[in-house]
Amino acid sequence: MIYDIAIVGGGPAGLSAALTARQRDKHAVVFDHLGFSPKLSKSPLVENYLGLAGISGQDLMDKFVNHAKLSGAQIREEKIISIYPSQEKFTLLTSQDTCEALAVIFAAGASVDEPLEGESRLLGRGVSYCATCDGQLFKGKNIAVIASLAESAEEVSFLAQICQSVLFFPGYKGKYPEAGNISIIKERPKEILGKDTVRAIKTESGEYPVEGVFVFHAAVHPGNIIQSLEFEGNFIKTDKHMRTNIDGFFAAGDCTGPPWQIAKAAGQGQVAALSAVNFIDKK
Amino acid sequence: MIYDIAIVGGGPAGLSAALTARQRDKHAVVFDHLGFSPKLSKSPLVENYLGLAGISGQDLMDKFVNHAKLSGAQIREEKIISIYPSQEKFTLLTSQDTCEALAVIFAAGASVDEPLEGESRLLGRGVSYCATCDGQLFKGKNIAVIASLAESAEEVSFLAQICQSVLFFPGYKGKYPEAGNISIIKERPKEILGKDTVRAIKTESGEYPVEGVFVFHAAVHPGNIIQSLEFEGNFIKTDKHMRTNIDGFFAAGDCTGPPWQIAKAAGQGQVAALSAVNFIDKK
Repeated sequence: MIYDIAIVGGGPAGLSAALTARQRDKHAVVFDHLGFSPKLSKSPLVENYLGLAGISGQDLMDKFVNHAKLSGAQIREEKIISIYPSQEKFTLLTSQDTCEALAVIFAAGASVDEPLEGESRLLGRGVSYCATCDGQLFKGKNIAVIASLAESAEEVSFLAQICQSVLFFPGYKGKYPEAGNISIIKERPKEILGKDTVRAIKTESGEYPVEGVFVFHAAVHPGNIIQSLEFEGNFIKTDKHMRTNIDGFFAAGDCTGPPWQIAKAAGQGQVAALSAVNFIDKK
Repeated sequence: MIYDIAIVGGGPAGLSAALTARQRDKHAVVFDHLGFSPKLSKSPLVENYLGLAGISGQDLMDKFVNHAKLSGAQIREEKIISIYPSQEKFTLLTSQDTCEALAVIFAAGASVDEPLEGESRLLGRGVSYCATCDGQLFKGKNIAVIASLAESAEEVSFLAQICQSVLFFPGYKGKYPEAGNISIIKERPKEILGKDTVRAIKTESGEYPVEGVFVFHAAVHPGNIIQSLEFEGNFIKTDKHMRTNIDGFFAAGDCTGPPWQIAKAAGQGQVAALSAVNFIDKK
């Protein structure tokens, strides 16, 4: 399956991008595993999205999602793990599948956890973001899981079935997965240690030796999803056409920096879509 | 009357700016003499303004205007003729009045007529944009009127009452004003001639000597509204915060360049408003 435009994130920027891509007759898919901007959905009242006066965040988001679906955009509830650019296209690895796209618009918001010390350096060398993708590599080994979302529990249980032992560092409050070989460690991981491969997790009180670490952030940091992406401070660097330094890879919305506003995100999504259409048509 | 933020143009960019300015408790006014984006109002169907599926341009614009009014933004149906910046504030000259503002957001769209050859150079030296403001300066003289809108007819009649003669170059089809001293010239003006002051209008077929010229564009070119504004090609140059080269003077929407899209304009209006709020609060 090759999409014309793959959009990472289903908030206002991503959905607006999908809408405009569809208007230009492009085959567009939106990847969203977080229920369409939980931040916006929780807002009791949005007063400055022009044309929809005094609406709740949830109602606004429902309208956005319905509008995007109506336009024919495909929605896939999968988390994006990695994106690999090549001459011809992008290959996207999701938590469940791989697919391809001619252009990518990154619109996953600003609220990503900062990577841990050592995490980016050891990514693919013992650090993984995806149990389904990489679990088998750690069969019979002693591993750790660092998770900021309760939704990770399922993946921890799966890893416990195939690994020798799992040290679980939960970054949320709630119910934790249970199994004989899962140890819950209520300490804050400070660093992932190791020279060429993962050796241990370091906390305030000491080190926990492991052979692998699965990190389940709410969203993977864009710099760890695609290599060589340029940033300006903490945000993806774009020009006014929402182009990044990577040909065919665009960004829109909160991930490009403040102000964090709905109309601004929707506008940038639209511009990114038109730039992506232009990029594809020039090929 | 000093406004916090004066907004020039009542299309999606201007109304979105007003809305966000009001949300930040600023006293905002929108100047619009064209009935709120006639271009958008004529669109039979708008499909890609996120959240409002399959809506006519007129209905969308009505929602926009009502939302802005509901927020407490003031709307004034006056054309902006000139803006003069000083250390403390901006002075705005309209077709009927003058007022002041701490910051200005220019959002008057892209569809302005290009100035005629000689027009900018002779502005204030025989070229005027406002009959009410400058008519008396040409009392008893022979003048020309160049107009691209039927709405100018009233001003032509007024000028005919005080001037010796009026050569009227209509750039529209319809009914023209009638009076003994009005001559309708159906030729395309090519240049306004004169060294220090206006001397004549040049057309394909010859020259028409006059002592003054009133030019009624649909909208005055921004470069002739405010001095020293920087352009990039035909469009106002802005940074990502919608700042222009003039401190406290911001721009948003179609006047900043393509793509010409509603959501993009609304997003830029919002960013411009937040930048203007920031500018005022820092003072």
